[in-house]
Order: sequence, then C-alpha cells, then structure tokens
Amino acid sequence: MSSFYATIMAGGVGTRLWPLSRHNRPKQALHLIGQRTMFQHAVERLTPLFPPENILVVTGPGHAGLLRPQAPQLPPTNWLIEPAGRNTGPAVGLAAVHLHRRDPDAIMAMLTADHYIGRVERFRAVLTAAADIARQGKIVTLGIKPTFPATGFGYIRQGEPLGRFGGFEAFQATRFTEKPDAATATAFVESGQYTWNSGMFIWRVDRVLAEFQRQRPQMYAHLMAIAEAVGTPREQRVLTEVWPQLEKISVDYAIMEGAQEVVVIPVDIGWSDVGSWATLLDIIPGDEQGNVVIGTHMGLDTTRTLVHGGKRLIVTIGLEDMIVVDTGDALLICPRDRAQDVKAVVERLQNEGHARFL
Amino acid sequence: MSSFYATIMAGGVGTRLWPLSRHNRPKQALHLIGQRTMFQHAVERLTPLFPPENILVVTGPGHAGLLRPQAPQLPPTNWLIEPAGRNTGPAVGLAAVHLHRRDPDAIMAMLTADHYIGRVERFRAVLTAAADIARQGKIVTLGIKPTFPATGFGYIRQGEPLGRFGGFEAFQATRFTEKPDAATATAFVESGQYTWNSGMFIWRVDRVLAEFQRQRPQMYAHLMAIAEAVGTPREQRVLTEVWPQLEKISVDYAIMEGAQEVVVIPVDIGWSDVGSWATLLDIIPGDEQGNVVIGTHMGLDTTRTLVHGGKRLIVTIGLEDMIVVDTGDALLICPRDRAQDVKAVVERLQNEGHARFL
Repeated sequence: MSSFYATIMAGGVGTRLWPLSRHNRPKQALHLIGQRTMFQHAVERLTPLFPPENILVVTGPGHAGLLRPQAPQLPPTNWLIEPAGRNTGPAVGLAAVHLHRRDPDAIMAMLTADHYIGRVERFRAVLTAAADIARQGKIVTLGIKPTFPATGFGYIRQGEPLGRFGGFEAFQATRFTEKPDAATATAFVESGQYTWNSGMFIWRVDRVLAEFQRQRPQMYAHLMAIAEAVGTPREQRVLTEVWPQLEKISVDYAIMEGAQEVVVIPVDIGWSDVGSWATLLDIIPGDEQGNVVIGTHMGLDTTRTLVHGGKRLIVTIGLEDMIVVDTGDALLICPRDRAQDVKAVVERLQNEGHARFL
Repeated sequence: MSSFYATIMAGGVGTRLWPLSRHNRPKQALHLIGQRTMFQHAVERLTPLFPPENILVVTGPGHAGLLRPQAPQLPPTNWLIEPAGRNTGPAVGLAAVHLHRRDPDAIMAMLTADHYIGRVERFRAVLTAAADIARQGKIVTLGIKPTFPATGFGYIRQGEPLGRFGGFEAFQATRFTEKPDAATATAFVESGQYTWNSGMFIWRVDRVLAEFQRQRPQMYAHLMAIAEAVGTPREQRVLTEVWPQLEKISVDYAIMEGAQEVVVIPVDIGWSDVGSWATLLDIIPGDEQGNVVIGTHMGLDTTRTLVHGGKRLIVTIGLEDMIVVDTGDALLICPRDRAQDVKAVVERLQNEGHARFL
C-alpha cells in the first residue's frame, strides 16, 4: 500500500450554500457538519489509511491560504496550486504528473473535499479494495447507490460483474451519462443497473496519463511540459504559462467517458454531495422537532427547519420545512424544496453587480 | 378654538413589533411607515389644526429623550413626564391637571402616538366636530367602524342619535365592552350598533376631572396634590411621591365605562392600531408582488411578504404571506397570520432571561 496516494480536489466554491459559501470562503472551508470543516473531514477520514505524506491537495492560490492551516499535518510539497480553476480535468492531470514523478507505480485516489461520507470505515475499506483492482490497470469509479431519480448527477451503467474484492462487488462500467432528464433518471434508477457518479476515482497514475495521451493528446503535451519543469527553477513559470492553455473540462468528459477498462464499485457509504442547504436536513440528525440548528434560535411551532446562524437571535414562528441561513451581511430564507434555487440567486447577484455579497 | 389642546399619549412599548420595538426603542419612535416615526406622524397630522403650544405629550423619562428630538417644535413645557408608566388613567389625569391650570376652559383631545391614520384631513375634521360637542360638556369618543370581529379591541355601543356635527353623526354611547369573545364580537359587528374604541377621547378638562372626582375620589385627591404643586419648586418632588400611589388603571376602566353623557362619533379615518407586523401589510401599499419592503431585499417568487431590514441583504425564495424582520441583533420570521404570537416570543425572552433582546 505504500504506493497508494489520495488526492483531494479542493478547488470549488459551492454556490448553492450561499450566503455562507463565498468566493473567498468556499464550501470545503465551512463548518457545515460538526466541529470540523468539510475539508478537515475529507482529510481526517483518510488518515487511518494514508500517511500524511501520501495525501495531496489540489486547489487554487486563494483557497490554499484558507485550507492549509486546517490540515497542518500535510507536508507543504503536497499542496498543488492551480494558477486558476480549469475544472477537474486539468486538476487531475496536474496531480498525476506530480505523483508520477514521485512514484511511477503510484496508485492515486481522486477524492472530493466538499462531500459528506457518513460511513467512513466502509469508505476506507472500499478504497483499499479499489486500489487492489486499480493495481491491475483498471480505472475504478465509486458509484453511489441512488436513493431517488436525481437529475443533477451523472450516472454510471453497470455491465458484467467482475467478482468480489474485499467484500465489494465490482462491475464493468459500460456508460457514463451526465445529468439525465427526469424520465431517463427514473428509468435508470428503476433498472437497478445504474449508480451515481461520485466523482471519486482510483487508478494507476501511468494509466490515467495514458488515457490523457490517447484521448486528449494536446492536453497531454501541455501536462508533459509541466512535468519536465517540476522540481526545476522553471517550475512555477512553466505552470503559469501552460495552465491557461489547458482546456476547461471535467475529468468525466476529458477521459472517463472514453476510458478503457473502467470498473464501477457500487457503494453504500452514507454519501451526500451536500449540494444544497436542504441536504443538511437529511444528513444531520435533527432535534425533537426535526430542526437542525446552528446558532442562537428560539422556535415556536417550528419543525423540520434548518437554522444556520451565529450570535444573532433567530426567532421563528410557525415554520415547517424551511431553511434560514443568517450570516454577517446576508440572510437567506426559503422553503426546503427551493434550496436548489440559491444557485439562481448567486447568478442574479453576479449579473446585477452585487459582487460584495459573492 | 384657542382653548382646544391635543394630548398625545406616548408611553407604550408595542411588544408585538419586536424585534424592532424594544424597551428603549418603543413603537412610537420607529420608522414603520414612510420616512417619519409613528410619533412624528402623530404630531404632524395635528399641526394644521393645533399650534405647537397646544400640543402636549405624556410619556416616560426614557422615551422622552428619544421623542423630544423628533418634535423640536413643541415647547419644552408641553412634555409631561410620568415618573413611571401607570397605564392611561393616571396619564390622562396628569394631562388634565396641567391643562386645567393653564386654561380652565380647555378642551382636550386625548390622542395616541402609535396608531396609523390614513385620512388625516377627515381626522382633523372630526376632531373639530368633537370639540364642538365637548364644549357642551359631553365626553366624546371616536369609534372606529369595525372591519372584522376583532377580539383584541374594546367596543362602544351606539344609543340614541344626537344629530350631525360638522358632517359627522353622533350618538349616545351606551356601553363599553373590553375585548369580547369571538361570538360576542361577531354579534357586535353584525348588529351595526358597535364601533371599536379607538382610545381617542375629546372632553373639557373640567368635565374629565369631575369624572375622576366622582368615580375615583382617591385618584382625584392625588391628582389635586400634584395640581397644587405644579409650577412650584415642590412640583417634581410631589409628583415623584404621589405617582406610585396612583392606581395602575386604563382610562377606559377608570372613568369611561362609568362616565355620564358620553357621545360616540363613528369615524372612517383609515385607522389602524398597527398592533402587529401583519397590519403593516394592510396599511402600506405593496409593490407589484404585494410585498412591503424596507431595506435591502432580493425576492424570487416572493409575494405578499413584509421584509423589514437594513443594509444586510435579505434573500427570500418562495415566500408567501410571510413576515421577516431583521435588526442588528435579532431576526424574526413568521407567517403573516402568526404575527400576534410575537407577544408570546417577548414573554418567553423575558421569562428565560434574555433581557438583552428586550
């Protein structure tokens, strides 16, 4: 296992958690669940399996300053700083280049910083099983058993069963479908043949680089230019020059959809993308009234409501299935089933020039 | 009309407008409607009819400091400061004592500082008509034509018609009923014989003092002790000594229910007691979505909602018939039809030792 590395992608923002999430205070840096930030949870659930020197983080220069103090145990050289966000494709390429230079036999788990995982032991067990499969040259994806016909996720179709690995069944992955319409999603879920794409992948770095070379030769050439400069005085300059030329593309589109020998392991690890305020009501156990409260709250006839505030007193009367998020300069109130529309709010703020609230 | 005086009772707090109304920031000092405070509205709607020297204010020492700068045109001697709030009975007595000393023929209108009057010209017209009736020794009350069977108001029963005065019909007032139950209130409203007690009375000061003497001889004796000291070096000391001995009682119970020769003028002056946040949605014209907004608001699918805030951005999604009141240290969210329950919140804050929010 010494060649098994975890790479945490920590570059996103998480606009649907506005007004708490901001450009300079991204979702992974927030204390959404318990006493630790999402990023700290992401690091700490890995530490029983990975020594700190085997945990890398890919993020932007802005976020790095925020996140570094949250995981001081990680060596400084394990922070890979993207000059700017160019989606997950280039981020994966950057991590693969660095890991390959460090250890050509490295197996890399690409993991997320802003998702919730309730069953962390099971999560670590499946990573171990996935590494065993990846060692054989497969590209392994973790598929989440769907609980509803979500239209906001990608789906992975299971093909031939490949047997059990460390207690987990693995299947050939035969198709990736990004964000299907509602009818398709329903059919997928009812078929029992599909899982959600968790965005967590396990592969040998040489295999993933080979996929870049085969499917994205131009991006591969750029990545090789970066690779040659790593560890030299030119490193930062080359990265800064090459980075803007990389296509902005997700790893799913860049290589996963066209990759060969892809395996999916359906898992039940209590996963949530924490994609909106509503998901916190699903994840965090509520009080007797089903309310999830962070901050100072007095509720009269208030049930199944999320109240996320601070020292200001929030009084709610007669609220049911509502979301209230109170920050220093902005306040959000919406029904639980409108939590996705926060994205539209952030877009409006942007379009109407209210940058100070972003 | 030179002997006609207005006395504005400005001692209350208005707990149902929490969290905006506080012990040290009472309802009458709030900017609830337009650019002026409730107290400023109360003064300004009188000024075309009363010269400033004929407008008196009765309030407590705490409120006085807040309200004086809001009406600098009133002479300092027209501010009558109660050492402590003892309900409206003693407040009326104090005003009557002062006015009687100033002008034994004075006619006094007892008015409120925290009610809304939409039709101010009609209001001034009825005051003029009422003064004419009061001059004959009658005690005149303004009755509000009821729009629904309110259980939170007092009701006045109309008896014999007394004719028209300045365009207003006047009736003998034959019964005062405080806060009836719902069935009684419904019967009252359906009968067409009842109006709401607005708390606005017009009378000769000698007549109201005679009612105190006849109905509340002990209170009258105390008031006379205060009267003898007015204008002397003993004035403040006597007031401070006597005041705590006055019964805490409303003017309705103290003298109105038992008064002789009471007249009611039913009026339609666009009156509201602004008794809760919900009434602001009735009084203030809303925007296209029926929202009443003070502050910085972005609404998605938000209708018939009151948003009262400041510089903090308040974003609401999918709210309908709701109330959102955002202040520096506290926030209230409730449906429009629960606005009365704010009173219970204030009681709970008191009982649970959260005095800093009161």
